[in-house]
Amino acid sequence: MPEAEDPGRKYFNCTEAERAVFEAGIKLGSIYHQYVGAPVTEANVATLEKAIEDGARVQPFVEDVRVRIDRKYVRKTKSAYKYVSLKGEMLDVELTVRYGGARARCALKYVEDLDYPLMHVLSVDAPH
Amino acid sequence: MPEAEDPGRKYFNCTEAERAVFEAGIKLGSIYHQYVGAPVTEANVATLEKAIEDGARVQPFVEDVRVRIDRKYVRKTKSAYKYVSLKGEMLDVELTVRYGGARARCALKYVEDLDYPLMHVLSVDAPH
Amino acid sequence: MPEAEDPGRKYFNCTEAERAVFEAGIKLGSIYHQYVGAPVTEANVATLEKAIEDGARVQPFVEDVRVRIDRKYVRKTKSAYKYVSLKGEMLDVELTVRYGGARARCALKYVEDLDYPLMHVLSVDAPH
Amino acid sequence: MPEAEDPGRKYFNCTEAERAVFEAGIKLGSIYHQYVGAPVTEANVATLEKAIEDGARVQPFVEDVRVRIDRKYVRKTKSAYKYVSLKGEMLDVELTVRYGGARARCALKYVEDLDYPLMHVLSVDAPH
Repeated sequence: MPEAEDPGRKYFNCTEAERAVFEAGIKLGSIYHQYVGAPVTEANVATLEKAIEDGARVQPFVEDVRVRIDRKYVRKTKSAYKYVSLKGEMLDVELTVRYGGARARCALKYVEDLDYPLMHVLSVDAPH
Repeated sequence: MPEAEDPGRKYFNCTEAERAVFEAGIKLGSIYHQYVGAPVTEANVATLEKAIEDGARVQPFVEDVRVRIDRKYVRKTKSAYKYVSLKGEMLDVELTVRYGGARARCALKYVEDLDYPLMHVLSVDAPH
Repeated sequence: MPEAEDPGRKYFNCTEAERAVFEAGIKLGSIYHQYVGAPVTEANVATLEKAIEDGARVQPFVEDVRVRIDRKYVRKTKSAYKYVSLKGEMLDVELTVRYGGARARCALKYVEDLDYPLMHVLSVDAPH
Repeated sequence: MPEAEDPGRKYFNCTEAERAVFEAGIKLGSIYHQYVGAPVTEANVATLEKAIEDGARVQPFVEDVRVRIDRKYVRKTKSAYKYVSLKGEMLDVELTVRYGGARARCALKYVEDLDYPLMHVLSVDAPH
């Protein structure tokens, strides 16, 4: 959706670059809190990845998205019922949002030295 | 998973029929509260249905499951950003759980005269 | 809500005892999948417990509920940002559902030998 | 948390203002997708508001947050079981994030002419 056609434009007081990262933050927060808790095994992990990706793609200003769930956690479960609940640290997401002339590349990835699934900003490109 | 192999069996004080409906209740409550809020359009509705079904299938004692999201709600959105958030009233789920000799068929379906997405028990079959 | 006043009664084909455990299963599945992922520290853990309890209490046929989140997990986080996401294994829930003459006591509790947050049926009482 | 003490700082390639709106987007997306679906009546609505607020406050860089759930939707339910599931359009959230010298004021509010619960940026303040 080009920025010129954004129906909500008048509600924002910020630059195009700030809007792009704001939208990216929304999508990453949404993915985490929508799908964490979902049941996962090797049998359904690819379907769940695709559902998360496709759900992100129908949201405004998403140019690209890639979701991976770390198979290591899925395979190593010793749980008696042979599946795991999706946790934030299993998620590896890359997301590109475009708004007007600005583009933000952001990610969600478990960072070991922080012991934290970090949502972060890889790059912001905007016209001068 | 046959009941004889249920690793958690000793934690339950109930009949096989009660166990079957308990497990069905868990799965229906899980589906509703896990996926309500997810973004949906005609482009991703089938993928989301499949992800919900596949997620239910990997959980213990689920024999069969069918998930439909009502396209009527998806198509009729007038929302400016052209997608809807999944709501309970859009969900139509049928689920069969088998535990030992018992089988419970349960459903989640919006019931108009109750104005409520009702999780209910269609039938319970158990040996005498 | 007494069973005689249950507006959805005609949609159920099961005994009062089965209905009671079905409703208990729904509530436990709901609690898990609604709140897993929520941010927790020692500062907000009591508020979150109360919100989960109060949310369960407004649902049909719940007679009593108690929710505890294990402080051990909350305190021991080494995560760089000093909070944890609620996980199923932190939850300890006891729930009593009454339907008509039947009463089901159920629980959600992490069981170490199963490495699994087990939803289970403690007892079912029903008139003969 | 002052920006100088941000343990994840090196993972971000953006300005302080962009970081502030990114963090605000995360929190708004998180609130929506974590709590939508939760059961609400007049009996528990204030507790749920407080739990959502307190959950936001324990997350990094949140300076202030206010959550209101529109009582109009809670009161007017005709649902047979006398409660509603929280929906995005019931939420009214104002959130201030501070990162380093930048401050972003953002909101989530149902906008009638868009028929959409809009997450938006009210203002961004940053040093020149």
